[in-house]
Amino acid sequence: MTPSPDSVRTAAARIAAFVHRTPVLHSTLIDEWAGAHVLLKAEHLQRAGAFKYRGATNAVQSLAAQVATKGVAAHSSGNHAAALALAARTRGIPAHIVMPANVAPVKRAAVAAYGARIIECEPTEAARIETLRAVVAETGAVEIHPFDNDDVIAGAGTAALELLDEVPGLDAIVAPLGGGGLLSGTALAARSAGGGVVVWGAEPAGADDAARSLAAGRLIPQTDPRTICDGLLTSLAPRTFAIVSELTAGVIVIDDDATRAALHMLLTRTKQLIEPSAAIALAAVRAEPSLAGRRVGVVLSGGNVDPARLAELAPPT
Amino acid sequence: MTPSPDSVRTAAARIAAFVHRTPVLHSTLIDEWAGAHVLLKAEHLQRAGAFKYRGATNAVQSLAAQVATKGVAAHSSGNHAAALALAARTRGIPAHIVMPANVAPVKRAAVAAYGARIIECEPTEAARIETLRAVVAETGAVEIHPFDNDDVIAGAGTAALELLDEVPGLDAIVAPLGGGGLLSGTALAARSAGGGVVVWGAEPAGADDAARSLAAGRLIPQTDPRTICDGLLTSLAPRTFAIVSELTAGVIVIDDDATRAALHMLLTRTKQLIEPSAAIALAAVRAEPSLAGRRVGVVLSGGNVDPARLAELAPPT
Repeated sequence: MTPSPDSVRTAAARIAAFVHRTPVLHSTLIDEWAGAHVLLKAEHLQRAGAFKYRGATNAVQSLAAQVATKGVAAHSSGNHAAALALAARTRGIPAHIVMPANVAPVKRAAVAAYGARIIECEPTEAARIETLRAVVAETGAVEIHPFDNDDVIAGAGTAALELLDEVPGLDAIVAPLGGGGLLSGTALAARSAGGGVVVWGAEPAGADDAARSLAAGRLIPQTDPRTICDGLLTSLAPRTFAIVSELTAGVIVIDDDATRAALHMLLTRTKQLIEPSAAIALAAVRAEPSLAGRRVGVVLSGGNVDPARLAELAPPT
Repeated sequence: MTPSPDSVRTAAARIAAFVHRTPVLHSTLIDEWAGAHVLLKAEHLQRAGAFKYRGATNAVQSLAAQVATKGVAAHSSGNHAAALALAARTRGIPAHIVMPANVAPVKRAAVAAYGARIIECEPTEAARIETLRAVVAETGAVEIHPFDNDDVIAGAGTAALELLDEVPGLDAIVAPLGGGGLLSGTALAARSAGGGVVVWGAEPAGADDAARSLAAGRLIPQTDPRTICDGLLTSLAPRTFAIVSELTAGVIVIDDDATRAALHMLLTRTKQLIEPSAAIALAAVRAEPSLAGRRVGVVLSGGNVDPARLAELAPPT
């Protein structure tokens, strides 16, 4: 299995100078709502607004100098694009980001503000892959996959490592689950830290390929995902499927209304703007019977949500 | 002049066991936007979601035991109601809160959740005053005014005292200005701390009685206030007018669109949910030429805003 649990500690040392050590938040009102003692690892306060900056930084800083000069590349319409752009700028190398032409202007602007070159393509998966291939061939840049990459996974795991370091006696950690990079890194961090902390993934019911894959014992890719959790649409890769299968307790499947309720609680009780793809992890604590009354870490993975979407994200009344 | 600058330190000692020592937040992106080095005193993370809990707690904890048993009373449709309810519950005494019948259900629910007795009245100032008078006569409770009260003012000033204690070398502090309790307490705290820190008020253009009163040298009460800053509708009292006149550099008048822009920046860049009546203070830093490039503390006074209002509070595009 790659990466190894030790790789998370190595990543933590490598990226320490570049990332924020985010705070761990606690709220009695959230505890009452969730039915557990919840420690919130506030990655929405990470640079570029999401944990993704950890993995991107670990990947960018791991590159040998002569390789790095040609830059890095990815296709992304979300947090990975901004994270990679900022990580590249921090090292002083180019970033080439392939984005679909219909991407939200606010996301495009964030990537542009970090100085990345943006290459537009048709809004299909095939066009994104083909355009990225052409960009890599043209520039010699290194592709940094958003989750199917050992350095990205190890970097993502550093959030949980900090949480485990800061909060003794956790029973469990819940992390959102899309492509599985964050959950894999979290599980590796827990293994590295020892102490038998149980790790769960939180997955939207409308994009539950991981739950179905774990039940079947083989990868079942997601088709036609439908959820408000726009960061969790992707399917597991073989690499993340292997780690999730071996090192986690399983997947808690959450419908969007429960995620809406969790987002609303976080917004009104902790005054924190959390994206739905992160709030789902708090919803999962409330939903999972075995977590009732336990000390549970939650990776609040990001806060990049357009405030104009908050009406759509309000809980049903 | 009452209260004295020393009263803020006395209040800080009295309430220390009950209030959160809120963090001071900093964001490079906010600095760039505001054109100053901005230190945000995060009172939206205070108990009950606003600085008001400090003053209410100082007032409630200052009561002699045999007076306190009869409870406290106020009329309020906003943060003071929730703050006083929680402060009373913390001391184990009754709170009688007069609220207009048309108050937002979420505000009424917050007060009820803190165990206060709610007395409904017609939604007019006259009815509120008359109902409160009847409640005080009936119960023997002590009226705690939301700002025209020395203990409330001194308690409000403890937020700035913590900020001054934590951040050396501040040039100025900006606080929102409605009835003037927070601004008065902030100015007293700065005087108490010494060091010549300049204190400014931030007032909505649609409720600018303080700016007009200072210009005229006499109190000119507000009539027909119109602003999104629903916590800043009130006029100064003689007590707060005296302190604001003597101890502050003046008032920065801000139109609602500038407040909307500041709220949006705080939401998207710091991921903090801030109410418009607090965001106005950041808008004032950006608007006031003498603050450009300076080290400026901002009292982010509260975060109690219904997320359903955020669409209405979005900046013009």
